[in-house]
Amino acid sequence: MHPAAHSLDAAMAQALELAERARLNCPPNPAVGCVLISPNGAVLGEGLTQPVGQAHAEVMALRDAAAKGLAVAGCTAYVTLEPCSHHGRTGPCCDALIAAGVKRVVASMQDPNPKVGGQGFARLRAAGVDVEVGQGALQARELNIGFFSRMVRGIPWVRMKAATSLDGLTALPNGTSQWITSPAAREDGHAWRARASAILTGIGTVLEDDPRLDVRLNSMASVTRQPDLVIVDSRLETPLTAQLWNATTRRILIYTASSDAALGNALLDKGAQVIRLPDANGKVELQAMLRDLGTREINELHVEAGYKLNGSLLRAKLVDELLLYQAPILLGEGAGIAALGPLTELAQGVAFEWVESRRIGADMRSVVRVAGHDQFLSQV
Amino acid sequence: MHPAAHSLDAAMAQALELAERARLNCPPNPAVGCVLISPNGAVLGEGLTQPVGQAHAEVMALRDAAAKGLAVAGCTAYVTLEPCSHHGRTGPCCDALIAAGVKRVVASMQDPNPKVGGQGFARLRAAGVDVEVGQGALQARELNIGFFSRMVRGIPWVRMKAATSLDGLTALPNGTSQWITSPAAREDGHAWRARASAILTGIGTVLEDDPRLDVRLNSMASVTRQPDLVIVDSRLETPLTAQLWNATTRRILIYTASSDAALGNALLDKGAQVIRLPDANGKVELQAMLRDLGTREINELHVEAGYKLNGSLLRAKLVDELLLYQAPILLGEGAGIAALGPLTELAQGVAFEWVESRRIGADMRSVVRVAGHDQFLSQV
Repeated sequence: MHPAAHSLDAAMAQALELAERARLNCPPNPAVGCVLISPNGAVLGEGLTQPVGQAHAEVMALRDAAAKGLAVAGCTAYVTLEPCSHHGRTGPCCDALIAAGVKRVVASMQDPNPKVGGQGFARLRAAGVDVEVGQGALQARELNIGFFSRMVRGIPWVRMKAATSLDGLTALPNGTSQWITSPAAREDGHAWRARASAILTGIGTVLEDDPRLDVRLNSMASVTRQPDLVIVDSRLETPLTAQLWNATTRRILIYTASSDAALGNALLDKGAQVIRLPDANGKVELQAMLRDLGTREINELHVEAGYKLNGSLLRAKLVDELLLYQAPILLGEGAGIAALGPLTELAQGVAFEWVESRRIGADMRSVVRVAGHDQFLSQV
Repeated sequence: MHPAAHSLDAAMAQALELAERARLNCPPNPAVGCVLISPNGAVLGEGLTQPVGQAHAEVMALRDAAAKGLAVAGCTAYVTLEPCSHHGRTGPCCDALIAAGVKRVVASMQDPNPKVGGQGFARLRAAGVDVEVGQGALQARELNIGFFSRMVRGIPWVRMKAATSLDGLTALPNGTSQWITSPAAREDGHAWRARASAILTGIGTVLEDDPRLDVRLNSMASVTRQPDLVIVDSRLETPLTAQLWNATTRRILIYTASSDAALGNALLDKGAQVIRLPDANGKVELQAMLRDLGTREINELHVEAGYKLNGSLLRAKLVDELLLYQAPILLGEGAGIAALGPLTELAQGVAFEWVESRRIGADMRSVVRVAGHDQFLSQV
């Protein structure tokens, strides 16, 4: 992790908390928070990114102040990302701030999109608004690691989730795996699913476990969006009767190497999109799949797959982060996390660095990252 | 863990720190700290348990005060264990305190030895000394979990150490295992060896890895004692040329099922003790071995063994605690922690509870305990 570049004003800390609350429902937009502060330090309005197509954080903060009957002319806007300058699904936020008479903008960071980065700040400055950049940059980037990844690298941030025993097993030799980890860990796992743009699995998991792979939290009140479902299905074997079709409405993307029109059409009829990206071995070309997912606005890709697909993704160096739940139990033998082939030297392993480790109910949750994979966070 | 029964006086916190410092060199005696406080609150003397056969903490604290020319009559003695009342390797501490004119004793806990527990307090009270018991009891018991185990259960506290990848592997398929974890974790592992009464391994590890299994810390200045070495060697196959014979002088105990006199005599000639405890299958009867180790004053038994012996100890429910170092790497396939046989239900696994988890260099160290195995701590 990087050292903090700036200390935080209280208003920026508040804006970051708002951004955090935006995270579940804002994808593919970045999670942003905005707080308007009067010259004497009073909070005039707060806002956070709304679901896609609706207002951004700055506009929500201006509306909040207006709804309270508070004048914002001459105020300072604290915002965790550069206000947008382009007409996308909504109007430019920097124009809204200028029109409202905001005198100063304190922003955590520039927009990571190389095509637009800096233009929002430029337009604000041209209108006579003071602009300061940097407060809370590290936190704001971490909150939006998937958005940054897509903007800078063109591919999602790939987070692989696994739930294992202390000796690294995901299932017993007879396949039993429900439930190694505790209800608290499973609930926490659903919260990580919820913040992702899409959940990815493989046909092996679909055929063996028949999972729904949607978000089911004890409190669904704050969830307005289900992540997309991505299935790696080289031969188009996804059953038309699988449980995954029963989940709440969502986009389903099936990546395949098959050109079987009948199988493809049957899945299209179920509402899925079928994308053919074969490699030379009759498998899906995984790197091309990630690039395609980038074009489809997938920021964080949450992988819940089996031993084989996990291994393929890791061997291709496409995994950025491992989200690991470990139950305090030894099981001796069974299925492991990922097939890497028999290594002959430790240096051939997939090396990570610890980000955090904490108790979740009876279990331990660890987040580890492949060294260097988050360098793009500091490249903007 | 248990809630704290009493808040701590500063002097008791100091006594517990002294006890902590005693831990490496005091076995088989318990780690005890003692602080003498004058009626106006000044520290008169400090002491901690010395190596076996030398003075206990109370006598060291009295000597410390005397060396400083400070009178202790009328003072309060804070001590983390009941002062002993019997003539063992040293004279009774309670007599020394009475003779010095100590007016009040604040002790963390009663001696867990059922044969002597309470007699020290009784003799102090009979001599007119005020006695208060309980401050720091939980910490003092944890510091001496092995001593408590031996006194209450008659067997050592069995701590199994393992160093694995994130996917639970201790070695690659070709046997490569040096070094999965970092130098910092290995140094930390030696500190845990140092506090144990004995290190246990199996003949498989001796033949495959030829380890020394002694304590080698970067700073050996504070280490005056090498733990005993215990080898489970059913057929007396320990090579006479193994590296373990080259380590610093220490007691070596070889448990066997073999009655081969020639093999046994050769090991006796090397200075080992050979103890025959066969079970019905030609293996060592592990439970009997633990009872025997209890009679030999082994408090904490530090297990560094391989897949098979680890499994045998776990299946026999003889392991109390797992000390696990996890390196942030995935290795895919190889040797696991322990052979438990193919389980068919998760409930057949060996279940633990988390005690702590913390970063050691690049790795994570976790301590987990078998639920209920530390109940003896509250049975005194």
